[in-house]
Amino acid sequence: MSGHAAIVGGGVIGGGWAARFLLAGWDVRVFDPDPEAARKIGEVLENARRSLPGLSDSPLPAEGVLQLCDTLEEAVAGAAWVQESVPERLELKHKVYAAIEAAVGPDVLIGSSTSGFTPSDLQAGAVEPGRIVVTHPFNPVYLLPLVELVASPASTPDQVARARAVIDGIGMYPLHIRQEIDAHLADRLLEAVWREALWLVSDGVATTAEIDDAIRYGFGIRWAQMGLFETYRIAGGEAGMKHFMAQFGPALKWPWTKLMDVPAFTDDLVDLIAGQSDAQSGHMGIRELERMRDDNLVAMMRALKPRDWGAGAILNAQDRAQGAAAGLPRTADAVTDPAAPVITVRRAVPVDWLDYNGHMTEARYLQAFADASDRFMEIIGCDQAYIASGGSFFTAETHIRHLDEARLAEVIELRTRVLGGGGKKMHLWHEIWCGTRLLATGEHVLIHVSLETRRPAPMPAQMAAVLDRFVTAQAGLPLPEGAGRFVGQPR
Amino acid sequence: MSGHAAIVGGGVIGGGWAARFLLAGWDVRVFDPDPEAARKIGEVLENARRSLPGLSDSPLPAEGVLQLCDTLEEAVAGAAWVQESVPERLELKHKVYAAIEAAVGPDVLIGSSTSGFTPSDLQAGAVEPGRIVVTHPFNPVYLLPLVELVASPASTPDQVARARAVIDGIGMYPLHIRQEIDAHLADRLLEAVWREALWLVSDGVATTAEIDDAIRYGFGIRWAQMGLFETYRIAGGEAGMKHFMAQFGPALKWPWTKLMDVPAFTDDLVDLIAGQSDAQSGHMGIRELERMRDDNLVAMMRALKPRDWGAGAILNAQDRAQGAAAGLPRTADAVTDPAAPVITVRRAVPVDWLDYNGHMTEARYLQAFADASDRFMEIIGCDQAYIASGGSFFTAETHIRHLDEARLAEVIELRTRVLGGGGKKMHLWHEIWCGTRLLATGEHVLIHVSLETRRPAPMPAQMAAVLDRFVTAQAGLPLPEGAGRFVGQPR
Repeated sequence: MSGHAAIVGGGVIGGGWAARFLLAGWDVRVFDPDPEAARKIGEVLENARRSLPGLSDSPLPAEGVLQLCDTLEEAVAGAAWVQESVPERLELKHKVYAAIEAAVGPDVLIGSSTSGFTPSDLQAGAVEPGRIVVTHPFNPVYLLPLVELVASPASTPDQVARARAVIDGIGMYPLHIRQEIDAHLADRLLEAVWREALWLVSDGVATTAEIDDAIRYGFGIRWAQMGLFETYRIAGGEAGMKHFMAQFGPALKWPWTKLMDVPAFTDDLVDLIAGQSDAQSGHMGIRELERMRDDNLVAMMRALKPRDWGAGAILNAQDRAQGAAAGLPRTADAVTDPAAPVITVRRAVPVDWLDYNGHMTEARYLQAFADASDRFMEIIGCDQAYIASGGSFFTAETHIRHLDEARLAEVIELRTRVLGGGGKKMHLWHEIWCGTRLLATGEHVLIHVSLETRRPAPMPAQMAAVLDRFVTAQAGLPLPEGAGRFVGQPR
Repeated sequence: MSGHAAIVGGGVIGGGWAARFLLAGWDVRVFDPDPEAARKIGEVLENARRSLPGLSDSPLPAEGVLQLCDTLEEAVAGAAWVQESVPERLELKHKVYAAIEAAVGPDVLIGSSTSGFTPSDLQAGAVEPGRIVVTHPFNPVYLLPLVELVASPASTPDQVARARAVIDGIGMYPLHIRQEIDAHLADRLLEAVWREALWLVSDGVATTAEIDDAIRYGFGIRWAQMGLFETYRIAGGEAGMKHFMAQFGPALKWPWTKLMDVPAFTDDLVDLIAGQSDAQSGHMGIRELERMRDDNLVAMMRALKPRDWGAGAILNAQDRAQGAAAGLPRTADAVTDPAAPVITVRRAVPVDWLDYNGHMTEARYLQAFADASDRFMEIIGCDQAYIASGGSFFTAETHIRHLDEARLAEVIELRTRVLGGGGKKMHLWHEIWCGTRLLATGEHVLIHVSLETRRPAPMPAQMAAVLDRFVTAQAGLPLPEGAGRFVGQPR
C-alpha cells in the first residue's frame, strides 16, 4: 500500500486510529482544528506505544511518521485511506466528505467512525457515494480488534474488499455487517444495555458501581471470550440450543426489562437460531466448549490478579484469607525452626501454567521459584513497604534441574533453604515437591539493590541480621544434592 | 460453620453450587429426582476440580464429602445452608420450601438460584418467610464470583449478614441488591441484550456468530474488567462523565434499538449518574484509568492466545503474518549461516511480563528462552505435527545469568547457539539482546522424550542429522563467556 493514512478528526477515536496506523508502519497525517489536538493525540499515542507492541509475539514494523496538518486538504492529499472521526452531526460529515472528495483521487476510500449513521445516510450528496463506508472501531482503538464494516449497495465488492484489507492489515478484525441499520450491530446491543441501566439508576434500584460489578464479576468475563449465543448454547447443556430457547423463551413475555417491544417467539425463530448456533459452534461438543470456556475464564481472571483489579481483586482477597489459613510464615518470628527448610509456597497448578506437552511449563517453575524467593524476602523484611521505600533484590543467577513433571491442579509445595548471604548477597535453594516426589530444584543468587540507582547496595543491618539467623542455623545442614552444579555436568 | 450444604436441584446450576461448596471444604448433600443427577453432578465436579484450584495462589482446603440423597428430607436435615436450584416455576418452588421448612430448624437459611422471582414472590406462604433469600449465581458457578443477594423486608439484617458470610466464605462475591425487582440486576441487562439480539437475528441483520463476534472482539473484553459506566467515564475523557452523557444522551431518542421505552433524560438523571460515577471511580484520574484498562485488556487478550481463541486467535493470526514478515527462520533450510547464532525470537516486552521492580520479571526470561528453544526445535523438525505424533523435548537443566534489565515495550532479540547434541540430548545457549545490551544468557540441556512413556528416547535419524549440521558448523566457535558456570562461581 503506497500513500499515507489521513485521519480527519483527532479526538479519542481519531487519535486511536492514528496510533493503530502508525504502529502498523503507516505514515499518518492528521487534521483537527482543535488547538489541543497535538497534545491529545500525543497522549493516545503514548498509551498505545506502551501497550500495543507487547500484544504481539513478534515485533511490529518500524513506526510510521506522524504529521499534524493545518488544513484538511494537506492531510488527505495523496492518502491511500481516509478515516473520518468528526462529531456525530450528519451535515458536518457531509461537509467534510465534500472537502475530502475535492482533494483526493476517485478511488480513495473514506472510512467513517460513525456509531449511528448508515452508509446511505453518509453518502447522500457525494460525488462517488460508493467510496464512503462505515468502519466503526471500539475504544481503545489501539487495542480492541473489532471494526464494524458496513457498506451500502452503492459500494462495489472491490471497494468492500479493499476496505477489509486495510483494516486487516493494521491488525484489526473487520466484521462485515451485511445490512445497513442505525447504530450497526454492537452499539444496538450496547444501547439496549445503556437504556436498561439508565432505568435501574433512575429507579434507584442500583448505583453505577453496583451495575458495573454485576457486569464485570459475571457475564462480562464470559463475553470476553464467547458471546451471547455460544454462552447460552453451553447453558442449554446436552439438550442444546433449542432446549435453552424453550426454557427462556417465555421470559420474553415477563417484565424482566422495561424495554418490552419484543420479537414474536415463533418456531421459525427458534429453528433459525438453533441452526445458526450449530453452524457456529457445532464442531465442538458441549464438554469441549465448557473446558475451553473454563480455561479462558481462569486465564483471564488470573490475568487481572497482578493489578488487583475486578475479578482478580476478589481472587486476591480470597488468597490472602486462604494463605493465612494455610499457615505459611510471613515473618521471621513465624518460622518455628530456622534450621529447617522453610515452606514458602503451597499452591495448585493452574491451567495457564501448562504447555503443549501437557505438563507445567518450564517458565512457570521459575515463577514458582521466584514466588518462593519473594516470600523469603518478605520473611527477612523485604516486604512491599520496604520495596516502596526504595530497596529490593534482583536475581543475578539461577540454576534449575527438572526431575519430574507436574500436572494440572496438582498441589506443589516449595521448600526453601539459605545457602549463604550477607552484605549485598543472598544465596537461596528451593525445592518443588508434589507429595513425595521432588519435581525440581532451583539455586539462586539474589543481589540487594537500590531501586533508585538500580545498582547493588548493602542490605540494611536489621535485614542482614535476620538473614544471618537463617544462614547460621542452616550452616550445619549438608549441601543439597545438585547444588553448585553446572549445566550438563556428569552426575 | 458446622453442618453441611444441602443442594436441592442438581442441574448445571445446582451441580456448580455443589462443586463450589465441596472445593471450599464443605460437606454437601444433594437431592435431585433426576436419575441422571449423579452423572451430571460428577461431570460438573470434574470440570471444577481441574479449573478452580489453580485460580487461587494458595491451596484450597481438603475437599468435603459429597452425598447424593434419595429424599429431600435426608439432604436438608442438619444442613447449615440450603441452596435451591429447581426449575423456574413458582408453585414448584413453594412446594419445595414447604418440605424444607418441615425438615430443618427455624434459623437455617434457604438461598434460591432463581433468575427472575423476587424474594417476596418466593416467601409467599412460608412459615419463616425471612429465611428465604435470593442467591443468584452465574454459570459456571464454580468459576464466576458473582452472586446476586436479594432479600425482602421480611429478612432481618442478621439473616442477610449470615447469607453474605456463607457466599463470601466459599470464595464468591455477594452483590447485595437493595431493591426487589423481577430478574434482579444482571439478568435485566442480559434480557435487554437478548431481546435486541433476537430482533437482529429475526430481522436477518446478523447471524448468531456475527453477533457473538461483535461482543467478544469489542465491548465484551472491556466488560470483563470495567463495567458500562466506568468504561463510559473513560470515553468521556478529560471532560468527564457529564460530557459523555451530554454527547450520547440524544441517542436515547434515536432508533438505535427496537426497545424504545426509555427513561426521561433530565438534568437530575445526569447529575445522579455523574455523582455516582465520581464516587465509584473518582479516586483515579482518566489517564490512570486508561492505563489500568489497557493493562487489563492486554493481559486478558494475551491470556486467550495459548488456546487460539477469540481475540487471542486474531492476535495469533497477526503474529504469524508479522513473524513471516520479520524473516525469522522456521526451517533449517531458511537458516542462511548454520555456523552463526540463529535469531530465534524477536518481540516487545508486554505489560504482563513486568513485576513490582518495574522491569521484565525473571520467570519471563525463562519464557523467552523456552520460546527460543521451541523455535529451534521447530527448525530441526520438532514442530507441532511431530509433537502430535508423540515425540518432544523436555528441558532437564537450565542456567540463567541476568546481566541487565528490560523495560516495558522494549524489543528483545534471542540469539541461539548449539553447544552440543545427538542421541537423546540437545545442549543450547541463548542470549537475550536489547539493541547492543546483552540482558541475559541461558544455558539449557533438553532431552528428547516419548510423550507416551514420558521417558527419554533417541530422536529420529532425520532430526539428529539436521541438529548435527548445526553442531558441526558451530563446533569451531569459542565457548560463550558464562557457559559451564555454576551459581555463585567467582568470575
